Amino acid sequence: MIVVMAPQATAAEIEVVQARIAEEGYAAHLSQGEARTVIGVIGAGDDRKQTFADQVESLAGVERVIFVLKPYKLVSAESRSDRSVVEVGEARFGGPNLVVCAGPCSVESYEQTLECARAVRRAGAQVLRGGAFKPRTSPYDFQGLGESGLDMLAAARDETGLPVVTEARAVRDVETVAEKADIIQIGARNMQNYDLLRAAGESGAPVLLKRGLAATIDEWLKAAEYIAATGNLKIILCERGIRTFESSTRNTLDIAAVPVAKRLTHLPVIVDPSHSGGRRDLVLPLSMAGVAVGSDGLLIEVHPQPDRALSDGAQSLTPESFEQLVEQIRPLAEVVGKPLPSSGDRKAPGGLWEP
Amino acid sequence: MIVVMAPQATAAEIEVVQARIAEEGYAAHLSQGEARTVIGVIGAGDDRKQTFADQVESLAGVERVIFVLKPYKLVSAESRSDRSVVEVGEARFGGPNLVVCAGPCSVESYEQTLECARAVRRAGAQVLRGGAFKPRTSPYDFQGLGESGLDMLAAARDETGLPVVTEARAVRDVETVAEKADIIQIGARNMQNYDLLRAAGESGAPVLLKRGLAATIDEWLKAAEYIAATGNLKIILCERGIRTFESSTRNTLDIAAVPVAKRLTHLPVIVDPSHSGGRRDLVLPLSMAGVAVGSDGLLIEVHPQPDRALSDGAQSLTPESFEQLVEQIRPLAEVVGKPLPSSGDRKAPGGLWEP
Amino acid sequence: MIVVMAPQATAAEIEVVQARIAEEGYAAHLSQGEARTVIGVIGAGDDRKQTFADQVESLAGVERVIFVLKPYKLVSAESRSDRSVVEVGEARFGGPNLVVCAGPCSVESYEQTLECARAVRRAGAQVLRGGAFKPRTSPYDFQGLGESGLDMLAAARDETGLPVVTEARAVRDVETVAEKADIIQIGARNMQNYDLLRAAGESGAPVLLKRGLAATIDEWLKAAEYIAATGNLKIILCERGIRTFESSTRNTLDIAAVPVAKRLTHLPVIVDPSHSGGRRDLVLPLSMAGVAVGSDGLLIEVHPQPDRALSDGAQSLTPESFEQLVEQIRPLAEVVGKPLPSSGDRKAPGGLWEP
Amino acid sequence: MIVVMAPQATAAEIEVVQARIAEEGYAAHLSQGEARTVIGVIGAGDDRKQTFADQVESLAGVERVIFVLKPYKLVSAESRSDRSVVEVGEARFGGPNLVVCAGPCSVESYEQTLECARAVRRAGAQVLRGGAFKPRTSPYDFQGLGESGLDMLAAARDETGLPVVTEARAVRDVETVAEKADIIQIGARNMQNYDLLRAAGESGAPVLLKRGLAATIDEWLKAAEYIAATGNLKIILCERGIRTFESSTRNTLDIAAVPVAKRLTHLPVIVDPSHSGGRRDLVLPLSMAGVAVGSDGLLIEVHPQPDRALSDGAQSLTPESFEQLVEQIRPLAEVVGKPLPSSGDRKAPGGLWEP
Repeated sequence: MIVVMAPQATAAEIEVVQARIAEEGYAAHLSQGEARTVIGVIGAGDDRKQTFADQVESLAGVERVIFVLKPYKLVSAESRSDRSVVEVGEARFGGPNLVVCAGPCSVESYEQTLECARAVRRAGAQVLRGGAFKPRTSPYDFQGLGESGLDMLAAARDETGLPVVTEARAVRDVETVAEKADIIQIGARNMQNYDLLRAAGESGAPVLLKRGLAATIDEWLKAAEYIAATGNLKIILCERGIRTFESSTRNTLDIAAVPVAKRLTHLPVIVDPSHSGGRRDLVLPLSMAGVAVGSDGLLIEVHPQPDRALSDGAQSLTPESFEQLVEQIRPLAEVVGKPLPSSGDRKAPGGLWEP
Repeated sequence: MIVVMAPQATAAEIEVVQARIAEEGYAAHLSQGEARTVIGVIGAGDDRKQTFADQVESLAGVERVIFVLKPYKLVSAESRSDRSVVEVGEARFGGPNLVVCAGPCSVESYEQTLECARAVRRAGAQVLRGGAFKPRTSPYDFQGLGESGLDMLAAARDETGLPVVTEARAVRDVETVAEKADIIQIGARNMQNYDLLRAAGESGAPVLLKRGLAATIDEWLKAAEYIAATGNLKIILCERGIRTFESSTRNTLDIAAVPVAKRLTHLPVIVDPSHSGGRRDLVLPLSMAGVAVGSDGLLIEVHPQPDRALSDGAQSLTPESFEQLVEQIRPLAEVVGKPLPSSGDRKAPGGLWEP
Repeated sequence: MIVVMAPQATAAEIEVVQARIAEEGYAAHLSQGEARTVIGVIGAGDDRKQTFADQVESLAGVERVIFVLKPYKLVSAESRSDRSVVEVGEARFGGPNLVVCAGPCSVESYEQTLECARAVRRAGAQVLRGGAFKPRTSPYDFQGLGESGLDMLAAARDETGLPVVTEARAVRDVETVAEKADIIQIGARNMQNYDLLRAAGESGAPVLLKRGLAATIDEWLKAAEYIAATGNLKIILCERGIRTFESSTRNTLDIAAVPVAKRLTHLPVIVDPSHSGGRRDLVLPLSMAGVAVGSDGLLIEVHPQPDRALSDGAQSLTPESFEQLVEQIRPLAEVVGKPLPSSGDRKAPGGLWEP
Repeated sequence: MIVVMAPQATAAEIEVVQARIAEEGYAAHLSQGEARTVIGVIGAGDDRKQTFADQVESLAGVERVIFVLKPYKLVSAESRSDRSVVEVGEARFGGPNLVVCAGPCSVESYEQTLECARAVRRAGAQVLRGGAFKPRTSPYDFQGLGESGLDMLAAARDETGLPVVTEARAVRDVETVAEKADIIQIGARNMQNYDLLRAAGESGAPVLLKRGLAATIDEWLKAAEYIAATGNLKIILCERGIRTFESSTRNTLDIAAVPVAKRLTHLPVIVDPSHSGGRRDLVLPLSMAGVAVGSDGLLIEVHPQPDRALSDGAQSLTPESFEQLVEQIRPLAEVVGKPLPSSGDRKAPGGLWEP
């Protein structure tokens, strides 16, 4: 942590800052430039210093306080020498293969869910996604089937062998989601719902953490640190687009966030090409970009009848176009060294081969 | 709702869209331009149409769907002829006087809270603010005193007569906050935590709804509609800055949001000059701007010792500088027709005049 | 300038950085923290260091380089003890009175310009604005009358005594604009057109520098520094809204930019409430906010017939509504200590009092 | 163009709008919904309607005006059935092969330029990039060698056979750049410098148009339309990152802009991975993403000694790392059907094979 004094700061003001640093148990390292005095604060990690920084900034003569260290530790790349792999069923996020998660935005019926699960499995998906608890911008939109939706997802998993990722919208959903599904998704709107992060972490289940619409990469990793602080390091980061001035797409996919986050943490990072573009015609090109940039997986919306979908119809693929997408992704994934698992690697539940 | 067909849309595709509109029970109004066919959808309000719009956008030949109506009804200015006034103790948000809410970012001790409450009351504040449940970006920051903090706020209210506004961070906090405080604050990070919005609405208590960091004004009003949909219209909107590329301030105060929101809704709108700038030296100018632009109130952080504050030290005013701020606001508020209440209007609890 | 080394930086890498700093003629001040080594670079001002910083960042083991000083000198508040006042005719930007500039977005005819000039003068404006060279987003929009527009503005000035501010869109316009008008406006799209900045500076005329749509305050001040570096310090900064995700207004007026820029520089700062909101109904509230926050002036679009205006009709005021605006601004300006000049202070050309 | 009337609009106000539309020579198509009256304006293209829209928005009772058509014609995908190919030397932007442009940010000396040109040619680049006129944010930064820099580039081209792309910063540079180089680059800061766009168009030379930092895709295409309106359709679009709140990268590469722009226009689109990330370690992943998403080419900064570069040292690759990048791009480009030209396809000037 570095304290930059204002140009007109007096010797007395500098002394007060030094005394305050010493009082807190840190060492102060003074550096007198021609135009500014700069004080290095040496001691504990920056994770304990945000409050202290605010306090110091409020002292007379202080211009600003600059952080040198990152305020997350457990998820930082520096904290371990290898990369995390999160295993769920046959899928290994961060492992040698690309993991494709696919399914409907909302679970609407058992038939729709099962039809979708079978189709995406046949096409090559390894994880089934589907929403039972839906956070919607307007109170008049469909809010999801809730717990019965979870049951439909669980039934589809039993039928197809695909593990399930689904969103927990509130602390009280966490237990049920952890019990009935395989991965707890934290949605973009909830990225800074800290109680929810903690509850998801404490469940012990793998957590898929979507980046908030207006969250910097730093804030995203601090949110991951909340989960990690519970002792649960089974965290999958998911870039899903940020809010910018550009209006021809629903959000702006921050494709650079994938390599940046992979450099800063040891966690796997996947891309959601459906929400980031918000347009069906962009799902394929954004999936291609995601795979090429080094993503560990994709999260894609598929619906048997997009024009009847109760949510996100405009960005859902049909099972047929999803199948074509997987076929286009396959050689690309191969070339970048993150191949899709070959179909021979996968067994149907009960040991029978899927037709 | 208006459906714009692609230039190359076929007659058959146009017919499918018309049939789909009829099936949903709406009337389709065709308009054939030189380069585009446009179909007006006439019938129920747009609040029920987002899902349908997504479905229509997924039909072949459709370029895009445009909304004409606003997707909120209960909070819209069109829904009533006068403006809402939210009464809390002596304060009337949206009434003839400016309402100043002030107090510490975090409640840290009974002494700090009471000292602060007395000071801000003396200076002219009508509502005491203070955080007991603190959502913090890093898990290593101070997280608030929780329920005992609420008790300290309640004690300060009993002592000073100032009603209390404090944040409910999660659904499970709502009942206690509604019982011990006077206004439930929904923080910026929770603006789209829909379960929390509903729970706050159902409590029947007045709700102060902060605008989300990346929320458009439309989304903010849709969030207010969630509260209103519970039958609770005691909603106070609070503009607190949005996230932009500018980094010399913590957020960018969207000052135009005040008149825009007041035009679109009948709800009172206040401004938070502390969080929007994130710098002590900006609290006064942003307060001035807020009052002049037509805000119904201000929400200001005050701490007896900012350099010891456990949160937001850098943007907190001392009681002395808060008092000066109120003195500078006073004539301005007078001139814009929204005066501060005269001190003679206020009684201390027990009927004694405050010195 | 501070160099932060990566945690795994070797002693050899640190030495290379130190050697490179010494080679450049600066002193290196090493500070060994627990997790990072930090090297202070002491010597010349940061204005000469951006290139060097990029070079150092490219050295092995360097994590990042942090600037301590601001990269502008001549316009910085530290460079002089008082504030600049830019005098143009009777107007004194940065002086004791608020300066209102008003007029049509585009000059369309002599009659329109003169009618407008008389009306805004009568209402209390001190400067006439009007565009002869119009930068338009689409090549099919009206591009301005060019030099003949300048002649109309000059004629209106001769008639009313109001000095004229008008935009120079390119280097080749500068000479003519400097000759025929009184203040050269640099538009938002040209804020980083450095040749134009230099040419405007070299003309010796006062320059009104609009903030770019996506420019940080720092970049805006660096652009001002380009002008100042020619020896011309008659610079007026103009905040006119930045681009954000909010779409209910054309741009987002960054009201905090006024006090921030006034703290960082000695230059006068004015506000453009017409372009920032892009809506007629917002011109008054944003003008109020601008005056209250400490702006030195306003720049307002007025057109005798907005529904016939060749540009910006939707945000132009009629002369009548402009007059009402000035009347509402007047007591506010008084209260904040920046009154409008009393009409008795102003004479018509030829010494006759304006009716 | 669609005019949405306010809910309280009177019949008389609606008639005024209809009359105004008729007066302009358009047909008005009235559509009476339950809550709103909507008027379709049928007739000439939207390219002539922005001014008229502003005028209509200023009429009483009008809520807003919505555009249906895109305001660019010549560059729109609808205007021709095939895609444009821009040929420069051996390079064909928009043709079957990926075009890699590489070279130093700034031309610093003949030796540096030639060394760089040889190295990038050897590695597989088809176009040499290099800046002679440099727009720099601070007046104290290196501003480029100007015309003698152009001569160095031309000499390097004669030596290596690589055509040259370089920026024209102002109208007066256009003629020289068009004469000495092969492609005129319009920088991001100049994307809305309309005189420059026109001058570049009129030169007849191919123009590489960078997207502005805060430009929507629509505005970018309107800027391209300025060039096209001169009759010059040899336009190459270049996505180079937009400004957002994320600060861990210099800009945010809007990767979706590539497929969106390719859908809206017939022009080739390339990606600049150096400026968008602003970090050397991101050049490779962002290049990968660019190729996979369907880009027609890449624009990459390469410098023999990044730690001595007079600009953009932090994001420049060494010739060695550029060579590795090309080797990693090669199989990816193959897989997505846009291969790099095989080295056997290229001859050195004079017919000799490059060693």
